Amino acid sequence: MSPESRLPHPTPLVAAIPPMTPFVAPEELARRVGRTELLRLGANESAFGPSPRAIAAMRDAVALTSWYGDPESIALRTALAARHGCTVDELVIASGIDDLMGLIVRAFCGPGDACVATLGTYPTLFYHLNAFGARAEFAEPDERGGIVPDAIVDAVRRSGAKLVYVANPDNPSGGFVDRATLASLREALPSDVLLFLDEAYADFVSRDELPSDVVDPRTIRTRTFSKAFGMAGARIGYAIASSDVIAAFQKLRLHFGVNRTAQIGALAALDDDAFLRGVVAEVERGRAEYHALAAAHGAPSLPSRTNFVCIGIGTRAQADAMVTALLELGVFVRKPWAPPIDGYIRVTVGTATERAAFAERFAEALDGVREKAAR
Amino acid sequence: MSPESRLPHPTPLVAAIPPMTPFVAPEELARRVGRTELLRLGANESAFGPSPRAIAAMRDAVALTSWYGDPESIALRTALAARHGCTVDELVIASGIDDLMGLIVRAFCGPGDACVATLGTYPTLFYHLNAFGARAEFAEPDERGGIVPDAIVDAVRRSGAKLVYVANPDNPSGGFVDRATLASLREALPSDVLLFLDEAYADFVSRDELPSDVVDPRTIRTRTFSKAFGMAGARIGYAIASSDVIAAFQKLRLHFGVNRTAQIGALAALDDDAFLRGVVAEVERGRAEYHALAAAHGAPSLPSRTNFVCIGIGTRAQADAMVTALLELGVFVRKPWAPPIDGYIRVTVGTATERAAFAERFAEALDGVREKAAR
Repeated sequence: MSPESRLPHPTPLVAAIPPMTPFVAPEELARRVGRTELLRLGANESAFGPSPRAIAAMRDAVALTSWYGDPESIALRTALAARHGCTVDELVIASGIDDLMGLIVRAFCGPGDACVATLGTYPTLFYHLNAFGARAEFAEPDERGGIVPDAIVDAVRRSGAKLVYVANPDNPSGGFVDRATLASLREALPSDVLLFLDEAYADFVSRDELPSDVVDPRTIRTRTFSKAFGMAGARIGYAIASSDVIAAFQKLRLHFGVNRTAQIGALAALDDDAFLRGVVAEVERGRAEYHALAAAHGAPSLPSRTNFVCIGIGTRAQADAMVTALLELGVFVRKPWAPPIDGYIRVTVGTATERAAFAERFAEALDGVREKAAR
Repeated sequence: MSPESRLPHPTPLVAAIPPMTPFVAPEELARRVGRTELLRLGANESAFGPSPRAIAAMRDAVALTSWYGDPESIALRTALAARHGCTVDELVIASGIDDLMGLIVRAFCGPGDACVATLGTYPTLFYHLNAFGARAEFAEPDERGGIVPDAIVDAVRRSGAKLVYVANPDNPSGGFVDRATLASLREALPSDVLLFLDEAYADFVSRDELPSDVVDPRTIRTRTFSKAFGMAGARIGYAIASSDVIAAFQKLRLHFGVNRTAQIGALAALDDDAFLRGVVAEVERGRAEYHALAAAHGAPSLPSRTNFVCIGIGTRAQADAMVTALLELGVFVRKPWAPPIDGYIRVTVGTATERAAFAERFAEALDGVREKAAR
């Protein structure tokens, strides 16, 4: 036996996991092109920041960083329970949806189990499935990268999956499925299958279009303060589910894991609906600009109910080249990873100034990509 | 089959985990006794807060909460690498040691595997072992709750454990083991056993008493900004280990899990050694006061190299009664959970004002407990 093999080594499950980084950060991308900053339109961070009330509350809170936050987040859960018409026991707070996603996979999808998801959806799901030794069973998307309910039900039947993931609105496509379609998907799924409805972008949609707030014991919904609330750096989100489903996370979650200032900021943010409405309205204007920009260049764009828009560049290789060309011009965007929309780039709605800057560099980068394609 | 059994249910491993809450929060304890606040001397939060430089940096950072923090924490890891004389690849940042502890258990101690720890040490370890289906193999402590190296080695032999946990300085006992003892423990352990050295309180000890900063491929050390740095609410800590050990966490960790403001605050805190030295000196004065207070009441106290002191009350039941009596007087303390030190309470060093307030209520509560014992 070599000396090296006698060093500590991870469990067989962990040793077998292929290394995988869910996303390369803009900080790292900037380093790669020798820049100190980028126009950040790639991670769907809100260009409109947190509510001034949240900022003020967080600035005040910082001096007491020496205290742990409340591990039960009672104040925040009480406010969220009132907002969603549920009980405190039907809510759990964690460090964003990525954290909740890890807990959901861990609790409901063990090693070897299948989770059904639509090909092309939010990659961090696959990171967690991979890391817990579970497997993804893909359902085919529609022509815009959106969900096909029948394909999901088929995938559950063939895989025996007990967990189904649907992001609504979806990331990276931006598509949205109405409440009636979701309700019939839920009814078509076996009752012991947990439907994981990732509503990271739901705050950009009016409440009457979203699924009812009545808690369904077969469904878990996740929400975040990272997107419309503009608090991605705070790492705070929540899940709504039956108290039985929530109870499973009490056994697994990091009880003291949520930043204290983030909890205080989130509570203040909930108290500023006017700000949130303003962000949603400005994001709608920004999406319209991006659609117009795409059309002006003869490029297709996908309908979106989020704070980003997918713009069609051409082939997958051309869209990849466009991401690189934009990066070289100092613009950070990302792109969908799977067909049929892997020939698109995904652009976050910036401020009016950022959108204008983007429009210029988009034209320049697109010219380069098209010239190369024409050669 | 009843309708309920056809609802979604957790994996068998998770379903079998007994519900367990690592610690009841002071917020919850205050609610139980109908108070809105307590004198917080129970969670070893720093009474001296974060460095003013860290506070200023965090206050400035808050406005950009809309941005995710750097998932690779390059700026912070670069500063920490310089501090510890290691490479950036030998460091991982996470949301405090509790988070790192979960990652270490998950990576190096699978379902059914044993982890050796000294009876009575930091309970969150057992929370994680429990939640990953691993098991604790206890080594007997010495008469002050400290580690007994031979007992640890024996426990490894009888259990086949591949992971050993040692907190140094220890929590809740406060005891400290010198570098020579630790080095000989390391040598006595099989080379494929990972020694998890939890150094949450190491910043209260002078560097020349701590283990060498030379990275040992068989050891992982965890550090935190929660204690001497006064940033518990920020949730940020780090581990130092070989790049091979660190690489395992890249597959498992929440890449975007660490609060952006916390990263910026931690970096600023590292730049204020004078503040840290002041905290350590004031904590030393506070410990001396607590030892004197205990002696004045004829109570024993345990030597401590941390920001807390264990004071002997009597039997386990008497120490439990003391915790309750203090809570009723508005004071939050905790106590060791296992013999031979479960007749002690554990009191965090407060400011001079808080220590004076504690001394008064300690006397009052102790009188009550002793009167009841004398009856």
